Amino acid sequence: MQLPIRVDPAAGKSLQSQIAEQIRQLILDGRLAPRTRMPASRELAQDLDVSRNTVIGAFARLTAEGLLQTREPIGTFVAESVPIPAPSPQVLPHAGSDETTRRGARARIRQRLQFHDESHQVLAPHARQLSFDFWVGRPDARVFPMRVWQSLLVRMLRGSAVHLCEYGDPQGVLELREAVAVHVGATRGIATDASRVLITNGIQEGLNLLAWLLVRRGVDVAVESPCYRGAARVFAGHGGVLRPVPVDEEGLVCTRLPRSAALAYVTPSHQYPLGATLSLRRRQALLAWAEDSGSYIAEDDYDCDFFYDGAPLPALKSLDRNDQVIYLGTFSKSLGAGLRIGYMVLPAELCEPARHAKALLNNCQPWLEQAALAAFIHEGGFAEHARRLRQLYTLRRNHLCAALAHGLPEWQIDGRGGGMHLVVRLPADGPDAQSVESMARARGVGVYGVENGNAQLFPADAGDPLHRVLLLGYAALTEAEISEAVLRLRQVARALDANDAVEAAQGLAVGAAAGAISNTEKPPS
Amino acid sequence: MQLPIRVDPAAGKSLQSQIAEQIRQLILDGRLAPRTRMPASRELAQDLDVSRNTVIGAFARLTAEGLLQTREPIGTFVAESVPIPAPSPQVLPHAGSDETTRRGARARIRQRLQFHDESHQVLAPHARQLSFDFWVGRPDARVFPMRVWQSLLVRMLRGSAVHLCEYGDPQGVLELREAVAVHVGATRGIATDASRVLITNGIQEGLNLLAWLLVRRGVDVAVESPCYRGAARVFAGHGGVLRPVPVDEEGLVCTRLPRSAALAYVTPSHQYPLGATLSLRRRQALLAWAEDSGSYIAEDDYDCDFFYDGAPLPALKSLDRNDQVIYLGTFSKSLGAGLRIGYMVLPAELCEPARHAKALLNNCQPWLEQAALAAFIHEGGFAEHARRLRQLYTLRRNHLCAALAHGLPEWQIDGRGGGMHLVVRLPADGPDAQSVESMARARGVGVYGVENGNAQLFPADAGDPLHRVLLLGYAALTEAEISEAVLRLRQVARALDANDAVEAAQGLAVGAAAGAISNTEKPPS
Repeated sequence: MQLPIRVDPAAGKSLQSQIAEQIRQLILDGRLAPRTRMPASRELAQDLDVSRNTVIGAFARLTAEGLLQTREPIGTFVAESVPIPAPSPQVLPHAGSDETTRRGARARIRQRLQFHDESHQVLAPHARQLSFDFWVGRPDARVFPMRVWQSLLVRMLRGSAVHLCEYGDPQGVLELREAVAVHVGATRGIATDASRVLITNGIQEGLNLLAWLLVRRGVDVAVESPCYRGAARVFAGHGGVLRPVPVDEEGLVCTRLPRSAALAYVTPSHQYPLGATLSLRRRQALLAWAEDSGSYIAEDDYDCDFFYDGAPLPALKSLDRNDQVIYLGTFSKSLGAGLRIGYMVLPAELCEPARHAKALLNNCQPWLEQAALAAFIHEGGFAEHARRLRQLYTLRRNHLCAALAHGLPEWQIDGRGGGMHLVVRLPADGPDAQSVESMARARGVGVYGVENGNAQLFPADAGDPLHRVLLLGYAALTEAEISEAVLRLRQVARALDANDAVEAAQGLAVGAAAGAISNTEKPPS
Repeated sequence: MQLPIRVDPAAGKSLQSQIAEQIRQLILDGRLAPRTRMPASRELAQDLDVSRNTVIGAFARLTAEGLLQTREPIGTFVAESVPIPAPSPQVLPHAGSDETTRRGARARIRQRLQFHDESHQVLAPHARQLSFDFWVGRPDARVFPMRVWQSLLVRMLRGSAVHLCEYGDPQGVLELREAVAVHVGATRGIATDASRVLITNGIQEGLNLLAWLLVRRGVDVAVESPCYRGAARVFAGHGGVLRPVPVDEEGLVCTRLPRSAALAYVTPSHQYPLGATLSLRRRQALLAWAEDSGSYIAEDDYDCDFFYDGAPLPALKSLDRNDQVIYLGTFSKSLGAGLRIGYMVLPAELCEPARHAKALLNNCQPWLEQAALAAFIHEGGFAEHARRLRQLYTLRRNHLCAALAHGLPEWQIDGRGGGMHLVVRLPADGPDAQSVESMARARGVGVYGVENGNAQLFPADAGDPLHRVLLLGYAALTEAEISEAVLRLRQVARALDANDAVEAAQGLAVGAAAGAISNTEKPPS
């Protein structure tokens, strides 16, 4: 049986709700008679081109409402007697009794909310309709170790529910902190233990925790110029004064660090967004500055799990003899951002304050996935998975470099040493990043200039070079997808060059015409 | 075979690590020879009195390290050839090269961290060694719907891993927001929809989000006196000036609300900590104040799922004609705090700013348990579970009230109308809450005075009455446990009364002796 149902992914409602509501209506209208047999969830899923879980969920809702009945193993049927549904709640009208007062209130509110409009672009883009998306720092969901993960979760849920029911230690599940300590020791040369590790809801929360501890109105915070916007916004949001410090091919230019800063936020492994790796010389200079000025360094090692062409430099934290470096890591790139598990390795004196701050922010992280991840690391599954990704991403990076070199030789490639994205510099005489970005989007390919790539620019970053930079995250695309995407980018670039030529030609023509006119205006002799 | 292993739950390391390390040592010392068969995980778990998962985890670690080998179905054995282990990381010495500079730095750091020592008591107590714990607001893990929950999680994980790998909508999973909108409509009379709901990491994060949006240095925030410490600390931490407003048996005394406040934080269902329910009259007065002063109201409905003796008053939010109430709810009490899922129902104009603020705080909540909870609610499982808990907790509340009335008739009971804890007022002529609390703890019973019960007191709260208040959370204790606990409390009270009598008598004796001495000091006549 084919049901008269349509679903629209772009609608404001989930597919499951759309399906449930339309079937509910069909039943209540009597168009689906009692005892009618429903199509099998698999068939309906195919008809509507949705996942089978979506249909199962919709059926389950209607069963709970008493509109459907399941008779194993025969199938699902419309209920014998259909109950009268409760009226669904309506949103209240906003109109208040006293307009004047309310306008006054609203005015004050707007003022209070002013700042927050700026935070806009920190949001990761959602529901992009693109055939090939080079969005930065996104892993490939197709290689997530789902079977292992599922069995780990089930194992963790065996036995007592106490961990699901009680508040956990704000610092995080002990087993996970132990696992993280071993992990950063083995992969980043950081000698630490569980007492120094704090589990966060991703690096973004780690930055908030730091800001809560160290940043007040008027406190100077040194940041890279350009830098990761999510960090800049958080420090500014806590009243900090951002002190941009330039970066070059060796990373942060440490001689330009202000002594006044209480905190310096850096991305040494793979500078965000420009991709440089901070040289050993600069790392030592940075640490010397921190010791000299009595400041902290926040080391954001967001995509450290992926290094190619030989061993990575050890983390800044591993050289931190004075315990002034706060190390921030995440499993968002190596496993998935939907788990929301990051961590900090803290200086001794910050451990307790950070634990209290985490308790004030949101008590602690959820237990289950922390416990599963701890087992995954301790039992060697994570190391194996990371190895596998490193091999895969190396191939994809090589393939992208080759495809670009062949198809768009005039595009200069940087930041290939590590991470999950390349930095492309467009030629000075061609179209800028924004033109390429928007035209590529029109052809179903997502590439990102620094600003739409969540980078924060400062006055010193103004001018041409940065507006000719494109970020290409390659981790989530297969080699075949990369080839096709680069073909389309090539067409985009050629089309834009052609336009430029035409415009240039038009420019000349207009000039000539103007000349002609001026001639005619000469008084006749 | 009995292994020479000991575990200590009080040690700073997880049981799993303790077991793994001791077995590792036995193998590396050669005391467990290659090919030796290990005891079955079940036996070892029994010997050590730990869960079997703990042993399985320890074996799995050692297997990953190559020290153990599993030969299904025979069992687990010490490996044929034992590899040389990598040296485990040592924590670096803290001593720096230049003591003076470092002391300078440290001094500045201490200053910056000063505030955070205050936040101390927001932490939920951990690893309490008590036979019977009346800690407030904790559900009974023994009735968690584990089987259903496990199958929901597995169902959610079927199919694509995309949700585990990508950042979600900062506002929360759409299906869960839809489910929450229906839930608060049905149970609290709040007419809303998914666009107004934002999913948070518990109410604590909701409070932070509000503070981020509305509180700046010097902004007045009206709070109940006494109030929930977690809220007071957050608002103060963002620079807000707390304006305590007294509470009585009708709840907040609205006539005392300052016009200057940009925000009023209230707990209308079950005032924290004193348990009063805000009367309808007062609710209307509170809303009138908000409209008049153009302020927001934060309605913390932390344990609204449990009402006894008839229907609850509708939520303040349901009477909110001017859209000035921010409603905060949580699943920490009805399901479990370890899930870390709370929600806000927001005024229209706060939705986008709140969404951006959530993105800045930590991007979004983890996906999996949000998705499972959505299905749990939509399919009717949650409503059924909540109904079951309500029946269970009603019995436990009644049992506690009866046991107290019988065993400690001089203790006055309040706040029985709802929630998960009773408020006990100790007689004015007897020992105070702190004495009862500490002596009860010594006998394995946890009861809490307002301060150790996470309440924030203000100068106006000083004086006797509040120091004679005890909070007794009963949700996690069976009737049998409650009976035994109340027996012990009775002994405590009697013992304290006796002490008082003795001290009083001693006081007299001392007085007499003093008199005698002074007499002897008279110069002989």
